[in-house]
Amino acid sequence: MTDTARDCPFCQTLANLSAVPPEDLVWEFPHSVLLLGTWQYYHGYCVLVARRHATELSGLPDDERRAFLEEMCRAARAIETAFSPLKMNYELLGNVVPHVHWHLVPRSAGDPARLKPVWLAVERAAADPAEHRRLRLGPVPPADTVRALRSALTSAS
Amino acid sequence: MTDTARDCPFCQTLANLSAVPPEDLVWEFPHSVLLLGTWQYYHGYCVLVARRHATELSGLPDDERRAFLEEMCRAARAIETAFSPLKMNYELLGNVVPHVHWHLVPRSAGDPARLKPVWLAVERAAADPAEHRRLRLGPVPPADTVRALRSALTSAS
Repeated sequence: MTDTARDCPFCQTLANLSAVPPEDLVWEFPHSVLLLGTWQYYHGYCVLVARRHATELSGLPDDERRAFLEEMCRAARAIETAFSPLKMNYELLGNVVPHVHWHLVPRSAGDPARLKPVWLAVERAAADPAEHRRLRLGPVPPADTVRALRSALTSAS
Repeated sequence: MTDTARDCPFCQTLANLSAVPPEDLVWEFPHSVLLLGTWQYYHGYCVLVARRHATELSGLPDDERRAFLEEMCRAARAIETAFSPLKMNYELLGNVVPHVHWHLVPRSAGDPARLKPVWLAVERAAADPAEHRRLRLGPVPPADTVRALRSALTSAS
């Protein structure tokens, strides 16, 4: 890690990766770290966090930004290989935690809300415990999901 | 344009760019076209459409995908230069129109919903004409917005 920011939750996670549960830490790239996402109803959902603290993509040096975007593509391809989603959604928001990170969200044909951004369902989950449980739980244990992702990343590299 | 798909609205737009109103066509890149977005409450919101029809980023040839992502970064930087947003949001979804395109959405400090993805407000706009009008209208006429974006793109190139 190069630049860090005090009080940034992602910088704190990156500074102490050994404290991350193994089933949450999917892969370490040179310029980013791939974490399993919270909402495994979107099976294979991952968050790719840049190692350097920057609040905007444009704040990364050119070569690092390009490498980070290549890593985004490698991670997304692994999700596609492992889970054959109907569609991939890529989102870099950072409205709440402004440290550049990609939400890589596979969408499935069986999702009745597949035409909508996932955030509408995630917003409902904040107010509805049943919806919260439904979105958090994947079809298999997280360790199996991570194993499938690592296998896809290994065979592609 | 190389590959196209019948019945794809973006392919139809790209095939007849001269029919696009000048205030909607912001910039032509080698591998993509920058269009002014619908919801100008997010002042400077643009949609960057790949010239080639691919349903996923991973479906573009490597060199074209890299060039498309560079163009995404150039477009986002122009929005930042022109409008100094609090935060940029980047989203490649394609759940409804599966032809790769980026939503480049500047978020402002004055937006009371700035911590949330824009899609929550856009969803409300579908059911509420007043909200629809509020989100569509920018603070200046679209031609002025496009002029500022083109100026930023020109001075950066």
